[in-house]
Amino acid sequence: MAFKTLSAKAAAALDQELMSTGAFSIDQLMELAGLSVSQVVYRVHPLNKGKRILVACGPGNNGGDGLVAARHLFHYGYQPSIYYPKRSKNDLYQRLAKQLEDLKVPFVDDFPSAVKSTDHIVDAVFGFRFSGEVREPFPAVIKALEETKLPVTAVDAPSSWNIEDGPPVSGVGSKYNPDFLISLTAPKPLVKHFKSRHFIGGRFVSPSIAEKYDFEVPDYQGLDQFVEVGNGTEKL
Amino acid sequence: MAFKTLSAKAAAALDQELMSTGAFSIDQLMELAGLSVSQVVYRVHPLNKGKRILVACGPGNNGGDGLVAARHLFHYGYQPSIYYPKRSKNDLYQRLAKQLEDLKVPFVDDFPSAVKSTDHIVDAVFGFRFSGEVREPFPAVIKALEETKLPVTAVDAPSSWNIEDGPPVSGVGSKYNPDFLISLTAPKPLVKHFKSRHFIGGRFVSPSIAEKYDFEVPDYQGLDQFVEVGNGTEKL
Repeated sequence: MAFKTLSAKAAAALDQELMSTGAFSIDQLMELAGLSVSQVVYRVHPLNKGKRILVACGPGNNGGDGLVAARHLFHYGYQPSIYYPKRSKNDLYQRLAKQLEDLKVPFVDDFPSAVKSTDHIVDAVFGFRFSGEVREPFPAVIKALEETKLPVTAVDAPSSWNIEDGPPVSGVGSKYNPDFLISLTAPKPLVKHFKSRHFIGGRFVSPSIAEKYDFEVPDYQGLDQFVEVGNGTEKL
Repeated sequence: MAFKTLSAKAAAALDQELMSTGAFSIDQLMELAGLSVSQVVYRVHPLNKGKRILVACGPGNNGGDGLVAARHLFHYGYQPSIYYPKRSKNDLYQRLAKQLEDLKVPFVDDFPSAVKSTDHIVDAVFGFRFSGEVREPFPAVIKALEETKLPVTAVDAPSSWNIEDGPPVSGVGSKYNPDFLISLTAPKPLVKHFKSRHFIGGRFVSPSIAEKYDFEVPDYQGLDQFVEVGNGTEKL
């Protein structure tokens, strides 16, 4: 049985519904999404595997999730560093960055260099709203993600992949295969092309919302804000 | 060695600092505070001890923490119910209540009756801003909390206790001794009078803020958003 997935359009509608009739603020949702990302990193890359975590943040919500995850990772005892070249003027993102600055988390300017001195990478560049081309300065980031032998955890989508169709046929991102993927709220169609360890996070979806969008709330365990669901060819 | 505690005045200043120069929104802080409360309940009252959790919410931030905790408890598999007699017009609290309504979590009107059909109680009535008298309709709530044999988890303070001096000498609350207390960010002076299991939650305080307010960030473990610290007579 295949995954039930959410198209980019449905994911956007669900987000909108959570923040309107669902009465969630984006602060709340991003906090919980980023928390789930941090928990997955802790699971796949425990502290004894190396504390340095490089978080690549894009200009939108995916980058915001990465900023939140980095803060939690700091509190778990990791040493995060942040690559965040296109800072948004959005108040929330500015505040999330300030929270990291207050923890003395370093922001780095050169991603390909930073990759040489980290133990794990979080790809929070593009999420389900991505389409089209990878714009500057991100092609070099995707290239570094393709080439690195370090473990990479991607947030919601391997950046540069088409949300419906998966990896680009050629060019930037066509050889990018992160080791770990955490889908937020529900997997997107691209997971059919993802063959490694796959998690779902975002433990805030009500049963009625899940029913409306035709997916099932995954079987979260204990206090976990994430659940591992096998790769794209397996049953949820 | 005694606890380092935060006076009510210092706790208010710390809150204000987190939300101004600290760049946190109250949505974020309340989400993380309520999450830590839910994790303590899961620890002291696992699902197999009974799923029904009655959450008594006061009109302010302590009540808001309770509303957030109840939502997470629902997602863990509990059956929370909410007593929330003095609903604030504050937008955040209204949204937190709506999030529970969307999960079909019941709101009850009669606390003493509701106590008869639950397995555990969360006291989120008054927090560190409480002083003076317990106003209507809460005296009957405190009385029920004094008399119940059910386990009670208090959020930040046993409601009706003076933040500095502990339980009232006589009258409402003088015989109230909850089984569990979770102090948020740092213990308040009243913990000197609390002799049962004590936790700290709120894993978002930066080392520099803790230093400024002269307490230590507790030694949180793993992914836990709380840490158990023994009772008020023990070392942190």
